[in-house]
Amino acid sequence: MITSTGNKRVKELAQLVKKAKERRNQGVFVVEGKKMYDEAPKDRVREVYVSESFLTEPENQKLVDASDYEVLADHVFSSVSDTVTPQGILSVIEMPHYEKEQFFSKENGMYLVLESIQDPGNLGTMFRTAEGAGISGIIMNKETVDVFNPKTIRSTMGSIYRVPFLITENLAQMLIDMKKKNIKSYAAHLKGEKAYDAFDYKKSCAFLIGNEGNGLSEALAELADTYIRIPMEGQVESLNAAMASGILMYEAQRQRRRND
Amino acid sequence: MITSTGNKRVKELAQLVKKAKERRNQGVFVVEGKKMYDEAPKDRVREVYVSESFLTEPENQKLVDASDYEVLADHVFSSVSDTVTPQGILSVIEMPHYEKEQFFSKENGMYLVLESIQDPGNLGTMFRTAEGAGISGIIMNKETVDVFNPKTIRSTMGSIYRVPFLITENLAQMLIDMKKKNIKSYAAHLKGEKAYDAFDYKKSCAFLIGNEGNGLSEALAELADTYIRIPMEGQVESLNAAMASGILMYEAQRQRRRND
Repeated sequence: MITSTGNKRVKELAQLVKKAKERRNQGVFVVEGKKMYDEAPKDRVREVYVSESFLTEPENQKLVDASDYEVLADHVFSSVSDTVTPQGILSVIEMPHYEKEQFFSKENGMYLVLESIQDPGNLGTMFRTAEGAGISGIIMNKETVDVFNPKTIRSTMGSIYRVPFLITENLAQMLIDMKKKNIKSYAAHLKGEKAYDAFDYKKSCAFLIGNEGNGLSEALAELADTYIRIPMEGQVESLNAAMASGILMYEAQRQRRRND
Repeated sequence: MITSTGNKRVKELAQLVKKAKERRNQGVFVVEGKKMYDEAPKDRVREVYVSESFLTEPENQKLVDASDYEVLADHVFSSVSDTVTPQGILSVIEMPHYEKEQFFSKENGMYLVLESIQDPGNLGTMFRTAEGAGISGIIMNKETVDVFNPKTIRSTMGSIYRVPFLITENLAQMLIDMKKKNIKSYAAHLKGEKAYDAFDYKKSCAFLIGNEGNGLSEALAELADTYIRIPMEGQVESLNAAMASGILMYEAQRQRRRND
C-alpha cells in the first residue's frame, strides 16, 4: 500500500489527472468510479488504483480481482481524486485512436462537428447524448476543451469509450472532405430560415455546433450546406450548446426510427 | 464607495449570495452581470451594486444611470461575487410569486414537473430550454435544488424572470389537481413501452422528470397518465435530466408548430 502523497507513482498519477499535456505525452487518461472501471475496454486498462477503504467491501474486492491494482491509503487517494466524494477507484486508460477511413465508412452515418466548445460538462453531455441518439462519430477542432478532462469524462457516463471521435487541426478541411463523401452538413445558425425539423436527416448528415459564447465562426458556417433554426419562444436568444446538439440529433433519430 | 468587506451591507449581500435560507427570509435573490440586470423587471429591483472599475466604462455608467446604485471597491465586489471573473454588477431582486389559478389557466398549456433535481446547472438549463420550447410553467418539489442558487440563476440566462414556476411541498397532490384540470402527464420511465414521439402533446400536457441519480419516485410515477420512453442506442442507460426534458419539450413544440 502507498501511504505517502510524495510517492513517485502517486505524483505521476496526480499529473495525469490535472494536466492535458501529460495525458497527451503518455497517451493515457484517468477515469474515476466503478462504472468507468467496469465499462473500460479491458485491453486498454493500464493501471488501477483503489483506496484502502474501497477494498473493505467484498463486492468491490470482487470487482477488481481480475486486475493488477495498487492500494492507496485513503488520504493519498483523496489527494489524487478529482471528485469531492471519491468512490475509491481510479483507472489509467490508453487513449483510443480512430482511423479516418473507418470513421466515415458507415452508411447513412450521423456526425456531430464541434467548434471550440469550452465547457467540459457540455462536451461530456454531448458524448452521452450522441451515443443515445445513435451517432457515428464526433469531430472536434483542437480548440475544443480536452475530451480527456476528468469533468468531461465524468459527464460522458462511459460514452467516451464507445463514441468514435476525431480531433483535427483543420476543421474546415475536414468539412470539405466530408462534403466529398456526400455527408450533408447542417449548421444551427441565426441565418437559418427554416426550422430544423423541416429537413430530412435519414441520409448521411452532420450537425455543426459552435462555441457556447460566440456560436460558429463565419469561416466554418460558410462551409455548411444548410442553415437551420431551432425555434425559440419568449426572449431566449440561444439554447445551451449541448441542448441544441441533443435536440438536433434526436430529431434525426426520430426520423430514422419512424422513417417518416 | 464601500471599501471594506466588513461593511454591514456587504456582509448581508454576501449572505444572500451564499444562503438559500437568507434569500427565503428576505424574499429576494441576487443576480450577476449586465444581462441579468438589464432584463430584470424594473419594479422588482431592490438594490444594485457595481464595482469601481465597472463604472470606468461610459457604456456601463449609462446602463445603471437610471438606478440607485452603490459602488464597491473592486476587492470588496470580488469578495461577494459568485463568479470567477465578475462582470462588476450585482442586483438584488424580489422573488416572484405566481398564483396557482393563473398558473394553470392557459389553454393547451405545457408544463414541466420536477422531482428532486439536484444539480443547479441542470435546473437552470431546464428553465432556459423550457422558455425556448414555449412552456407555460415549471412545478418543483421542495427537495429540488434552490431555484435562486446563483449557479441556477446563471444557467437560466434570464429565463428565471419569465418562466412561471411553483414550488410545492406535495408534488403528488399537485399532480392530482392537474389531472382534474385535464392536463395529461407523461413520465419518462423505464416501464415506458412506446417512444415519446408516439404521443400527441398538442393538448394540455405535463412532462415528469425525476432526480438525476434515481429517476422518478414510484409514488410519483404511479400518478402519471402515461409512461414514455426516450429510445437510447449503444449502452446508454439514461440521458442527462435536463437533456431529457429538452428533448420532450421540443417534441411537443414541434408537434404544436407543425400541427401534425
